Amino acid sequence: MRLSSYFLPLLKENPTEAQIVSHRLMLRAGMIRQSSAGIYTWLPLGHRVLRKIEQIVREEMDAAGCQELLMPAIQPAELWQESGRYDAYGKEMLRITDRHDRAMLFGPTHEEVITDLFRTSVKSYRDLPKNLYQIQWKFRDEVRPRFGIMRGREFLMKDNYSFDLDFAGARHSYNKMFLAYLRTFRRMGLTSIPMRADSGAIGGDMSHEFIVLAETGESAVFCDKAWLDADPLKETIDYGADLQPFVDRWTSLYAVTDDKHDPKACKVPAERLYEGRGIEVGHIFYFGNKYSKAMNARVTDETGAEVFVEMGSYGIGVSRLAGAVIEASHDDKGIIWPAPIAPFTLGVINLRSGDAACDAMAGDLYAKCQKAGIEVLYDDRNERAGVKFASMDLIGLPWQAAIGPRGAAAGKVELKARGAAGPAEELSVDAVIARLSAN
Amino acid sequence: MRLSSYFLPLLKENPTEAQIVSHRLMLRAGMIRQSSAGIYTWLPLGHRVLRKIEQIVREEMDAAGCQELLMPAIQPAELWQESGRYDAYGKEMLRITDRHDRAMLFGPTHEEVITDLFRTSVKSYRDLPKNLYQIQWKFRDEVRPRFGIMRGREFLMKDNYSFDLDFAGARHSYNKMFLAYLRTFRRMGLTSIPMRADSGAIGGDMSHEFIVLAETGESAVFCDKAWLDADPLKETIDYGADLQPFVDRWTSLYAVTDDKHDPKACKVPAERLYEGRGIEVGHIFYFGNKYSKAMNARVTDETGAEVFVEMGSYGIGVSRLAGAVIEASHDDKGIIWPAPIAPFTLGVINLRSGDAACDAMAGDLYAKCQKAGIEVLYDDRNERAGVKFASMDLIGLPWQAAIGPRGAAAGKVELKARGAAGPAEELSVDAVIARLSAN
Repeated sequence: MRLSSYFLPLLKENPTEAQIVSHRLMLRAGMIRQSSAGIYTWLPLGHRVLRKIEQIVREEMDAAGCQELLMPAIQPAELWQESGRYDAYGKEMLRITDRHDRAMLFGPTHEEVITDLFRTSVKSYRDLPKNLYQIQWKFRDEVRPRFGIMRGREFLMKDNYSFDLDFAGARHSYNKMFLAYLRTFRRMGLTSIPMRADSGAIGGDMSHEFIVLAETGESAVFCDKAWLDADPLKETIDYGADLQPFVDRWTSLYAVTDDKHDPKACKVPAERLYEGRGIEVGHIFYFGNKYSKAMNARVTDETGAEVFVEMGSYGIGVSRLAGAVIEASHDDKGIIWPAPIAPFTLGVINLRSGDAACDAMAGDLYAKCQKAGIEVLYDDRNERAGVKFASMDLIGLPWQAAIGPRGAAAGKVELKARGAAGPAEELSVDAVIARLSAN
Repeated sequence: MRLSSYFLPLLKENPTEAQIVSHRLMLRAGMIRQSSAGIYTWLPLGHRVLRKIEQIVREEMDAAGCQELLMPAIQPAELWQESGRYDAYGKEMLRITDRHDRAMLFGPTHEEVITDLFRTSVKSYRDLPKNLYQIQWKFRDEVRPRFGIMRGREFLMKDNYSFDLDFAGARHSYNKMFLAYLRTFRRMGLTSIPMRADSGAIGGDMSHEFIVLAETGESAVFCDKAWLDADPLKETIDYGADLQPFVDRWTSLYAVTDDKHDPKACKVPAERLYEGRGIEVGHIFYFGNKYSKAMNARVTDETGAEVFVEMGSYGIGVSRLAGAVIEASHDDKGIIWPAPIAPFTLGVINLRSGDAACDAMAGDLYAKCQKAGIEVLYDDRNERAGVKFASMDLIGLPWQAAIGPRGAAAGKVELKARGAAGPAEELSVDAVIARLSAN
């Protein structure tokens, strides 16, 4: 993409309404614009990030045996009356009356819709287990939306729902998601730590919040420093095998939010205890037959008896992750995107647009990137070099290639990783292509 | 995907509520389920089709120089009051009051939101032209939703909006979309015919409805038979060049809906006049400065003068297309998917699940398909051969590979194209892979 024709409205100043760094940087980098309170348009640059996050989530869900579907945004109130949550949900639910005076709502979550779908479609243990997911926009009418897309009203979630015949099956489904979540966030360049969460009336240990570390995070967290070096991608997971040993090993490492941290009871030695802050990006939750009982979702088991199906639900804040990654990865110049979710891999900076040699070399690099499948944004604007460097630092692409008159004469591009210390490397156009293709 | 674990609730009987063939087949084939009137869940099989349609639309929009973004579903009423459409839109608009008593709505279309975004971000002719698109769920509160997803309330659209400095630019943007639409529908295996449509108060010839031919279509259409053999993909389009000659050539061929057909004035000889029926799947529309004037969206031109930006909008009914394709391509046994949007390419039918030789050969074919990147659905259920053939015909994958004891003994798969007359071909597993990889 050529920046001169890209819809990328950068802001020079920090918007006064933005209180946290991800909100400021997303506005300044032309990723989002507010449409109304807590409701945003995702501009092309932001949209690219959103789709990359979405795709990683999708791949890991598919790998864990989940199947994608898509439920509607607008739900009938009756289902929520049936589950008993319609009145309980309060003002965060956006309630709607349609032209025939039917009570509807914009779904804040989809337990009711999926349970209704399940009970009309599945009747036998032979059709279990099932784990169905969607990536869908939801709405929660926050009383005070803030922090940009981190606590917005309209937001993108991956939510899925597991259906099993019995508790052993439900635990296996839960364990799959536990491990899939660790992989998912790690693939985005994040260290995520599952923290035992309240599981409500059900009790037990099958509820975890996944928190990514970021200095600007909303929650204080305490964990074993072993978490900081943990790499869930090093393990190959066979989702058909018993996963309990893997989950037990991960959960044996201390990790709690401050409301659960008791310094006296904590057995981690002081030198191994990490104290920091974090942002919740996912939650997995086993809730047994809470909804299947309320909504009469039953299957027949091997003996022909009818049993309420065992369920769990699992959420990832897809749009929130875009902000969480920025909170975790930025400097005073702007965003530093982890490569897997960067909107483009390389930014080409033509230091003197209009100069024939610079234009030719930058154009050559741009064309060769496109041919090699390297996602590239080419700053071909008539702007000063300083403005171009500042723009590229702000939007935070993993690699920057600068081309000026001196380099063009010598056949050299200055290649630099965003955020890296030290001088740029001088490479030929072909060497840049080779380097980035290998990444 | 193995059918035994796939969430594919097939129906044996025709649902009584379904009046048209696409609605019947989408319900029976387990593609969709109604959640409430005119509102559907897209089950995994239907969701796959939807995403393939979406991807073709996306590729053709990108090729034509459009940039993808995503606007919110929930819009503030003020923007519509500003454009003058809030009261005019009537009851099809789903009006919502949020917890702070602000008037909001679920967007039926996005001219207001995009014009608001444009006016706050773009100030100069140097940033033009722009053509911004999204693929987004919309809501129209139809008084009588029917025909399944063909006239639902919540539906998926691709909508885009062009911004140009002057009329010549706007016409070029319009022409790009005219040609991109012809390509888009053709890539889905459809014959689409642009029919001159009313352009409202503006007049002129820059409004076309794109109609695909289907016997069960809602509109009667009359056109030159040359349309039936036209293949827009044969032309290579340079979107930077003058497109008027191409558009003129296409529009010189007669094509009108019945309300505009005047047998006396029609100059097409009777033997060349095709009379049939069709379904609207797209609409392109130039509307000049209607919204830019109402909402004060101005840019400075080369002389420094401020001018209202010239706009057009362009829509494709993405979810509707899934139904339109079925209306255009089915037989009495079920759907016949065109390959580019088929949910899977190949269905493997194990005629005797449990038989060691059949299981081994079907498993081998299944594994090799996955390795070769051929999308495959393997019917490994414990069902009679007749049930399996009927299921596969119903869901309409382009290719069927049947494996029975006799074939397994001879090392032969029976390969047949869905809807093809004549006997199946007998091929080895490797020959099937080679055949389908070449497709």
